[in-house]
Amino acid sequence: MKLDLPETLYWSDNALYLLDQRLLPHKIQYLEMKKIQDTWDAIKTLAVRGAPAIGVAAAYGLAQSMQGVAPDQFDETLQANGAYLKSARPTAVNLAWAVDRLVANASSDAGFGGLLEDAQSIHREDLEICMNIGRHGAPLIKSGSSVLTHCNAGSLAVSRYGTATAPMYVQHQNGVTFKVFADETRPLYQGARLTAWELDQAGIDVTLICDNMAATHMSRGLIDLVVVGTDRVTANGDVINKIGTLGVAILAQYFNIPFYVACPSSTFDAMTPTGADVEIEERDPAEVIGKHGAAVKVSNPAFDVTPHSLVTGIITEDGIYQPQELVQRFR
Amino acid sequence: MKLDLPETLYWSDNALYLLDQRLLPHKIQYLEMKKIQDTWDAIKTLAVRGAPAIGVAAAYGLAQSMQGVAPDQFDETLQANGAYLKSARPTAVNLAWAVDRLVANASSDAGFGGLLEDAQSIHREDLEICMNIGRHGAPLIKSGSSVLTHCNAGSLAVSRYGTATAPMYVQHQNGVTFKVFADETRPLYQGARLTAWELDQAGIDVTLICDNMAATHMSRGLIDLVVVGTDRVTANGDVINKIGTLGVAILAQYFNIPFYVACPSSTFDAMTPTGADVEIEERDPAEVIGKHGAAVKVSNPAFDVTPHSLVTGIITEDGIYQPQELVQRFR
Repeated sequence: MKLDLPETLYWSDNALYLLDQRLLPHKIQYLEMKKIQDTWDAIKTLAVRGAPAIGVAAAYGLAQSMQGVAPDQFDETLQANGAYLKSARPTAVNLAWAVDRLVANASSDAGFGGLLEDAQSIHREDLEICMNIGRHGAPLIKSGSSVLTHCNAGSLAVSRYGTATAPMYVQHQNGVTFKVFADETRPLYQGARLTAWELDQAGIDVTLICDNMAATHMSRGLIDLVVVGTDRVTANGDVINKIGTLGVAILAQYFNIPFYVACPSSTFDAMTPTGADVEIEERDPAEVIGKHGAAVKVSNPAFDVTPHSLVTGIITEDGIYQPQELVQRFR
Repeated sequence: MKLDLPETLYWSDNALYLLDQRLLPHKIQYLEMKKIQDTWDAIKTLAVRGAPAIGVAAAYGLAQSMQGVAPDQFDETLQANGAYLKSARPTAVNLAWAVDRLVANASSDAGFGGLLEDAQSIHREDLEICMNIGRHGAPLIKSGSSVLTHCNAGSLAVSRYGTATAPMYVQHQNGVTFKVFADETRPLYQGARLTAWELDQAGIDVTLICDNMAATHMSRGLIDLVVVGTDRVTANGDVINKIGTLGVAILAQYFNIPFYVACPSSTFDAMTPTGADVEIEERDPAEVIGKHGAAVKVSNPAFDVTPHSLVTGIITEDGIYQPQELVQRFR
């Protein structure tokens, strides 16, 4: 079965184009990145989002920014541009990982061409990784069962299969029928705008719920499995992901529902001991107040920390691991 | 300290006026109920909401509908109008309770005047009940502590002190300083529009969060107590309340935070054995999809069932009880 989904990003005529995810599901429009500030803005304002997509976009954006840079300024400019791009989303480990890889592999001899080749490799590898996450995770989704997911770790988060959605897309291609419940994911509605949209586009039976409805659906026996993505897994197996993930994990434990996290192994951050050591981005109160709320104080953390004790398994391109096994496997 | 809050509803010149809560916090506007259909619409569309407020509004609305009804048609019309009003929100036990009380106490001799007097009694009793809930619950809120609440069981839910907010208003009047976190309460944002607004109006330190942020605030040690309202407590102590309450209760148990429910004893429904026996209203998918979501299937239950095992205590006008004690006390 074909997966009928638009590209999240592509490289064409020496420029990077990003699907503007802020306009979905109402409009499909690509943004041309003309200079490095455009890529920084796109990452910062969530025109492109999802851990792997941010990494791929940053890699292309960094390569693009080095076109025409003189050899004697190459190293200094590359360092500065890389640091600049990394500052757009400090919590996203894939962003730092992709930038650091390009910087480490670069040489003024290979120049822009070498950087572009490396960015294209990251993009291609990411597609393969997502397919393999899907292959390993697919057997968790039984025929006739229901999966809950939170936020968007889907095709839009990059490379066709996504991470949390990869097992769903693979099972769908295998002809297995199942249902998905998508948390809307306040305050930015990534689940309502992106996950529900892309699963529906692909022909998967998806039902949208508000975040606070997950518990009652679990209590009614309507959820058999939870799969989410992650922005970072720390050395002890704690999972940093979109705000709301911790709550879903606690509910899943209460109702004895398996809670899986899907991510490329590059998301594993062996240098950070625990989730408590991760700086959590605090975002604009206006996102929460919106049109509806009273003009009062707001707390708006973008991520939360799910302790490894709540995680049944982590689905990687290499297989499914217990959180504690990651240190041995990937450090 | 004075509580500076607008009236939720009032009776004037033989007509009922309701503060249109759908327009808050942006506009303070009262709706005149001209005929019984207006009251039915106001209850159905949440212009008036909150369990006790619905009861008081229905009582006045039913009385108003009986003005000028001929004595020989009195009983039949009263039955029909009562049944009609009860159909507006089938889950709200206070609605049925208030209507049934007026019908039981009515006589064609006492006529409209008798019904109005009974409605005014319900209103006055409700104020006293809320003050007593506040008096019993206030000691749970320690100086310097933080309280989480969900939805709006506040002053707007009727009679100045509200139910879940009554302990907060009483402690605030006592000069105790504390913080409140208000869940925004999707899909209708009662927490963002109403609770955050009314607490802020009263000068209480309130912070608005999205529903899915409660877990991370609890994990950071920022929540010492949860107090919510309820639409119905069944004979075994199960609590029916706004969607999202169950999730908060499970999180509170996980983090060892006391979880209290505040309600008048009239909310206790000894005739319904357990929460599983309560019909849960399923509302319009458009409420969830809003401007943001993809046009996919939606599940939108208005309430959930919190099992009595998750409830630390129920704060009534008569004292604080374990859920299981209610049967002995109030049946």
